[in-house]
Amino acid sequence: MTAKNAFYAQSGGVTAVINASACGVIETCRKHSDKIANVYAGRNGIIGALTEDLIDTNQESAEDIAALKNTPSGAFGSCRYKLKSLEDNKREYERLIEVFKAHNIGYFFYNGGGDSADTCFKVSQLSEKMGFPVQAIHVPKTVDNDLPITDNCPGFGSVAKYIAVSTLEASYDVRSMAKTSTKIFVIEVMGRHAGWIAAAGALVEDYGIPVVTLFPEVEFDQKKFLAAVDAKVKEHGYCTVVVSEGCHWPDGKFLAEQGTRDDFGHAQLGGAAPVVANMIKEALGYKFHWAVADYLQRAARHLASKSDVEQAYALGEAAVNMALEGHNSIMPTVVRESSSPYKWSIGMAPLSEVANVEKMMPMDYISDDGYGITDACKEYLYPLIQGEAYPEYDENGMPRYVTLKGIAVPRKLADFEI
Amino acid sequence: MTAKNAFYAQSGGVTAVINASACGVIETCRKHSDKIANVYAGRNGIIGALTEDLIDTNQESAEDIAALKNTPSGAFGSCRYKLKSLEDNKREYERLIEVFKAHNIGYFFYNGGGDSADTCFKVSQLSEKMGFPVQAIHVPKTVDNDLPITDNCPGFGSVAKYIAVSTLEASYDVRSMAKTSTKIFVIEVMGRHAGWIAAAGALVEDYGIPVVTLFPEVEFDQKKFLAAVDAKVKEHGYCTVVVSEGCHWPDGKFLAEQGTRDDFGHAQLGGAAPVVANMIKEALGYKFHWAVADYLQRAARHLASKSDVEQAYALGEAAVNMALEGHNSIMPTVVRESSSPYKWSIGMAPLSEVANVEKMMPMDYISDDGYGITDACKEYLYPLIQGEAYPEYDENGMPRYVTLKGIAVPRKLADFEI
Repeated sequence: MTAKNAFYAQSGGVTAVINASACGVIETCRKHSDKIANVYAGRNGIIGALTEDLIDTNQESAEDIAALKNTPSGAFGSCRYKLKSLEDNKREYERLIEVFKAHNIGYFFYNGGGDSADTCFKVSQLSEKMGFPVQAIHVPKTVDNDLPITDNCPGFGSVAKYIAVSTLEASYDVRSMAKTSTKIFVIEVMGRHAGWIAAAGALVEDYGIPVVTLFPEVEFDQKKFLAAVDAKVKEHGYCTVVVSEGCHWPDGKFLAEQGTRDDFGHAQLGGAAPVVANMIKEALGYKFHWAVADYLQRAARHLASKSDVEQAYALGEAAVNMALEGHNSIMPTVVRESSSPYKWSIGMAPLSEVANVEKMMPMDYISDDGYGITDACKEYLYPLIQGEAYPEYDENGMPRYVTLKGIAVPRKLADFEI
Repeated sequence: MTAKNAFYAQSGGVTAVINASACGVIETCRKHSDKIANVYAGRNGIIGALTEDLIDTNQESAEDIAALKNTPSGAFGSCRYKLKSLEDNKREYERLIEVFKAHNIGYFFYNGGGDSADTCFKVSQLSEKMGFPVQAIHVPKTVDNDLPITDNCPGFGSVAKYIAVSTLEASYDVRSMAKTSTKIFVIEVMGRHAGWIAAAGALVEDYGIPVVTLFPEVEFDQKKFLAAVDAKVKEHGYCTVVVSEGCHWPDGKFLAEQGTRDDFGHAQLGGAAPVVANMIKEALGYKFHWAVADYLQRAARHLASKSDVEQAYALGEAAVNMALEGHNSIMPTVVRESSSPYKWSIGMAPLSEVANVEKMMPMDYISDDGYGITDACKEYLYPLIQGEAYPEYDENGMPRYVTLKGIAVPRKLADFEI
């Protein structure tokens, strides 16, 4: 059998460790160059496949590929682009087959979250439905931690560690200032549908911090919330609030959509944090500070979780090995063997059971009052933030992150409009 | 001579390394217990002195005091409280003398920024004006980096490192997403009067990032700014914007004071970042993300600069040694011997030349177009962010930060209303 090429692409919101998965895929393929000649990376995800914009990873040095393990973001570019069903969009699937044939691609590794698993699942059906042999393996990635079957998703552990540590640090700060100045610190975290990241902020309760957490799973009750904050301030002198961007009123309206307008009457897109902070100030009079972590949280490779980096790499490695074993339409998963001490192994899930299934946070992870997390949740979270995996720093004091050469494979086909 | 006690307090906004200065003060005092019997720390700054709320640091273990070096925030509590002049507020000065006498305090170490230097200067005059012998030494601290004479201020280097690294990481993120999604990332940083911290964000230009920086020193010109951002996006596909909280219009109004109101007509306190992001969206149509780092930046001990931690400790140590040499009304300073390689030593400045003097960023540190920094600025900044000084982490994956016992010295005096 002649060696085929592999296609690899990154999809959806990027993370601090998605490049570690890329590193796992490429380094493992290179170990099997008798079976996989080259890894062609799609520039900007599946768009790179559709437009025949493929990056020749064989032109990247072993050092640069290894450095991906410590570099945040998506080194090949990502995209937000979901393929329609085969029935509704035959043109794009035919184009994929055309590109795969032209470049002798027999393996399709797609690194992403829920939407990407769906795309990968559709590609995996090409063999059967369109008679073209390609093995499609999904490499899980999402800070939202909402893929099913796998115990957790690469990217989440590092965000969780960043938010837990940053919330602790900022809480120490407000504690220092509370006597004569700031008494409330509000931090807004990602998570539109699920409160996994907010739950990581709630871990600071174990470190003596009075904290009220607002989850997307719990409808916002202004009166009850203000009473909870006031009680904490009266007892401790200060209070930290962790608010998920997905926190919403009973009618489904996000707190962030408070309808703020500027002097000209233009609607303003704000955050949930300033809304909550102003609400506290108005009702209780406490001085506040607020932060919106946004991309800082999911890009914070400088404080990545060691277990997260290792799992991201291992899942990329496993994807290639599973492909070489002949599997198609599957996703390698993290299986938790034990929480204390933390032990995990790699499992395998069929993509038919992954695509379009969203794993929510169990309701028994949220405390009875709705503002904290339970011991079960803590037992789940701590292993995921264990260990540090620092990048190297250069002589300036800046991290050594790699930017790849990104040389394109020569095109063989006509242009394609997407 | 009987050993006297020392008073130490933290003042103003806290930092990632102010406790390293506390560690330097206390450990050095302990080495000279023949001359300094105990360090009494003011709980919540000068308020602790006025209300006779003193923390007995001799009851803290050597391990806990050493752990201060790696713990962010103000371990003894800080305050925003500025003493008036001796003429206008004799009552408070008389109270200070009463407390100092009651607790045999002969040394006054005050750890803070510009306002605190002024308080320390006033206390230093007690000897002369009120006939009470106390040596007052100011230990510099401020993320604003605006104290005169000293080359830089402890606290700033760590914020600068955090902002430079975080801006780089988030820029990699938006670069990954730019093809089909977010093209603009806006990060808001501290600095109401001076653009030192914003300048640290601008360092990412050296790492290939298209960045437009908005300094408080440069009046905001909306048309010119939007043109600068648009040019970067057209050339690179994306653009990062670093905006100082102090960025303002020609009439002096902060960008953050955009006059936003909620549905009920209440004025909203927003950030500059969402204002800038919305402005770009409206004029140029680019999808954006924005972050407000707020306390996260000044509390980020997890990414402290090694030179900053070392200087913070050394200045605390030097303050005690200078006191033991008989000095009064002075501040130890950082003297830069060379930038490359970075070499520094400790100097000494009279408080009369420090109090109420604000050091601005030199205008030749800002590039001609007003949106970047010059080589001179980079040469100044890089040494301050060099090296990493990580805290230890516990088995959960959280940093080992110390919370002191904080046992109060028994009171000897009547209550005092502040």
